Amino acid sequence: MADEVVLLNFWCSPFGLRVRISLAEKGIKYEYKEEDLMGNKKSPLLLEMNPVHKKVPVLIHNGKPICESLIIVQYIDEVWSDRSPLLPSDPCQRAQARFWADYVDRKIDDSQSKLLLATKEEQEAAKKSFLDVLKLLEEELGHKAYFGGDKFDFSDIAFVPYYCFFKTYEILGKFKMEEECPRIIAWAKKCMEKESVFKSLPDPQKVYELFVEVRKKFGVE
Amino acid sequence: MADEVVLLNFWCSPFGLRVRISLAEKGIKYEYKEEDLMGNKKSPLLLEMNPVHKKVPVLIHNGKPICESLIIVQYIDEVWSDRSPLLPSDPCQRAQARFWADYVDRKIDDSQSKLLLATKEEQEAAKKSFLDVLKLLEEELGHKAYFGGDKFDFSDIAFVPYYCFFKTYEILGKFKMEEECPRIIAWAKKCMEKESVFKSLPDPQKVYELFVEVRKKFGVE
Repeated sequence: MADEVVLLNFWCSPFGLRVRISLAEKGIKYEYKEEDLMGNKKSPLLLEMNPVHKKVPVLIHNGKPICESLIIVQYIDEVWSDRSPLLPSDPCQRAQARFWADYVDRKIDDSQSKLLLATKEEQEAAKKSFLDVLKLLEEELGHKAYFGGDKFDFSDIAFVPYYCFFKTYEILGKFKMEEECPRIIAWAKKCMEKESVFKSLPDPQKVYELFVEVRKKFGVE
Repeated sequence: MADEVVLLNFWCSPFGLRVRISLAEKGIKYEYKEEDLMGNKKSPLLLEMNPVHKKVPVLIHNGKPICESLIIVQYIDEVWSDRSPLLPSDPCQRAQARFWADYVDRKIDDSQSKLLLATKEEQEAAKKSFLDVLKLLEEELGHKAYFGGDKFDFSDIAFVPYYCFFKTYEILGKFKMEEECPRIIAWAKKCMEKESVFKSLPDPQKVYELFVEVRKKFGVE
């Protein structure tokens, strides 16, 4: 039986983009179903497939749902283990890759939301907190090509989707990513040389326009 | 070379208990080093080994630190893969085990802290939120012996350390776990039949006394 793979997603969800990049790395064909999250209309399929969190992305593989982006990426790596490994094979390197993916998961999204939805009064503090999170990644990257060393892996997949938000950070946060985090910029450009990444990431201008809309929706001036 | 395994921990950290249970399941001998977290005196070794989060537990294996409890448990499973598997072998079941472990990780600790540090005014709301989190686990457990089915695994290891907090929930939260979550109680008792669990978990009375002290420290009446 051919594999039936369906992805429920929202076009610029960094979590969903992790899954798109992983599927592209493995060369897996899938049906893409966009969720209308801006219209607050979650599909009955999403609510059925992820009743606990009710969130995208959900990967449905031969009818079975897999939820939570980093768990999905590991699932993809384990099911299609015959090609393009996403995690290193050495347990210590795997733990390191998981550690940085987890760091991104716990720190970026929260501090990013605070930055992008900050009022004028909140902006300086939000910017400082967000840059603190990024600078730790900048330091960890050091002079390596990727977070794990020479090879693009799980930790890169966790973080690189945020590259399409960088323009939005710069405009709304009033700073230059290149000045604050030059190593992250060099790393992101290197990741973008990979077809799996540049074909998955949406247009940064569209992401910016979305956040202008989101700020209006939340009444942030 | 014999493996040198050191665990930096605080005696009732549910995160550290996950690691102790996993090491016991695998029969791995290790040196235990207690951190004085109540005295706010983190050791120089902890700060050196986990500079990002500065938290227990840290597993130091042949000099290399592994941080974050669920990552450590997976590391232990991958390094000592010749005995007592902690994760199922099927990718879909592995994803399910990771999903529930992640749920416990993201939901329990936060809502538990709110319950245990609640003032009189906050108590009812904190109790409701906490029970909502638990009841979803109660429902998922259903009539299975363990979260993954017939076998004790990763998801059980993630949740069972909280069993030594149940008495504290009951006294400070003013409810009976047996009445609210009878399936969880039956599951926890079954887990406690395992030597790896009952030899790792501390005395619930001592956990309760710690929280009385913590409440005093935070000035909660």
